[in-house]
Amino acid sequence: MPPDFLISLLARYSQQPPSIRPHVTLTFAQSTDAKIAAIPGKQLILSGDESMQMTHWLRSMHDAILVGIGTALNDDPQLNTRRLPPPHNLPRPIILDSHLRLSTSCKLLNNFRAGSGRRPWIISTPSQDPSWISRKDALEQAGANIIEIPSLNGRLSVPAVLQSLRDRDVRSLMVEGGATVIASFFSASVVDTLIITTAPTLVGDNGLGYTLAGSHQQFTLAHTQLLGKDTVTSWVA
Amino acid sequence: MPPDFLISLLARYSQQPPSIRPHVTLTFAQSTDAKIAAIPGKQLILSGDESMQMTHWLRSMHDAILVGIGTALNDDPQLNTRRLPPPHNLPRPIILDSHLRLSTSCKLLNNFRAGSGRRPWIISTPSQDPSWISRKDALEQAGANIIEIPSLNGRLSVPAVLQSLRDRDVRSLMVEGGATVIASFFSASVVDTLIITTAPTLVGDNGLGYTLAGSHQQFTLAHTQLLGKDTVTSWVA
Repeated sequence: MPPDFLISLLARYSQQPPSIRPHVTLTFAQSTDAKIAAIPGKQLILSGDESMQMTHWLRSMHDAILVGIGTALNDDPQLNTRRLPPPHNLPRPIILDSHLRLSTSCKLLNNFRAGSGRRPWIISTPSQDPSWISRKDALEQAGANIIEIPSLNGRLSVPAVLQSLRDRDVRSLMVEGGATVIASFFSASVVDTLIITTAPTLVGDNGLGYTLAGSHQQFTLAHTQLLGKDTVTSWVA
Repeated sequence: MPPDFLISLLARYSQQPPSIRPHVTLTFAQSTDAKIAAIPGKQLILSGDESMQMTHWLRSMHDAILVGIGTALNDDPQLNTRRLPPPHNLPRPIILDSHLRLSTSCKLLNNFRAGSGRRPWIISTPSQDPSWISRKDALEQAGANIIEIPSLNGRLSVPAVLQSLRDRDVRSLMVEGGATVIASFFSASVVDTLIITTAPTLVGDNGLGYTLAGSHQQFTLAHTQLLGKDTVTSWVA
């Protein structure tokens, strides 16, 4: 069973989400000095075992898990729930990837082909560029489902992405980063639940921070507790 | 009695400090997103009752408490241990104030004159400016002890300040901020113990952060725990 505080926190997700988007949980790990990576583009293992387990429970409580292409390329994540005892819900992995840079041999696609992960959905912007089209063919061959959403000023629009997911019956979405995705979800003011895991470490000024800029949401503290040496704090909008 | 973790953490302060400086503890409160104030110059009450009590115990375990003039002007702090049961050590208040901007009616001087606080020491840079001299006279009249240290490139040098305090038999110093003082103590690499209290709140991008820039010290995690809703984490250099 998931930790009690997650069950309480997400109880409201059993209600119907809005018609325009899923319930959205934004979550990431940081150092005490609020850095999410030591150097931009370099993965930083911040979380201890207990908080990693909590993250896997959290994943199991959502229909889908979304990351940006930067995170997908840098970390090659599995976005699964391998630390949990069966049975549990296996969420859909979703990658925001305007230019289709994802590797056909990434773990997400390998796991899908091996039968241990759901089919990844890649959200991209349609293009007539032959190399984009050939990458699309290759990724589809490798098992991906490509969802095309017209770009807004050259970028994927968070509201359009969320509408598209809601239309595909994604009722709850967990957003895991990285920094670009965190910034775009904050600035779109579409975060229902925010969960930050803080590891007791100092990265320093060269580390990569994050921004709350543009958010019109007020976050109310829901819960804070230690898991191992990490502090897990959650807020609701 | 102070919390056990503080007793363990500072046990090594019973040893003789180096000849050039006191044992130094740097401590401050921050939000989850690592802001120490909502707006520069505006006090932000971040800490809950339990962690405020811890801070007062921590004060009682040091010979002196140092703040910068910005903090002294903005917060008008008492830097005392009024939340503790007697008897306990009452630390010496010290203000870094190159230009002698401290008010003669601040709480630190009022408390001293009322017999409820130690005589404040103000560390300043000597000047021939008549208005500096008249402010010095007024502050001395109000009860302050002015310590003059020649400036280095127009600023007080942290090593010179610490040598001066050690020469006056200050064996342990707790440094409480603000941002300028935090930066100068980190960059001077003179922090023996670092204690950060994190309140589970988000200040956002307009808040005032801090910098570890220039520090050559490596901080090793000593302890982390929840006090009320705040996380108190300590490191030793």
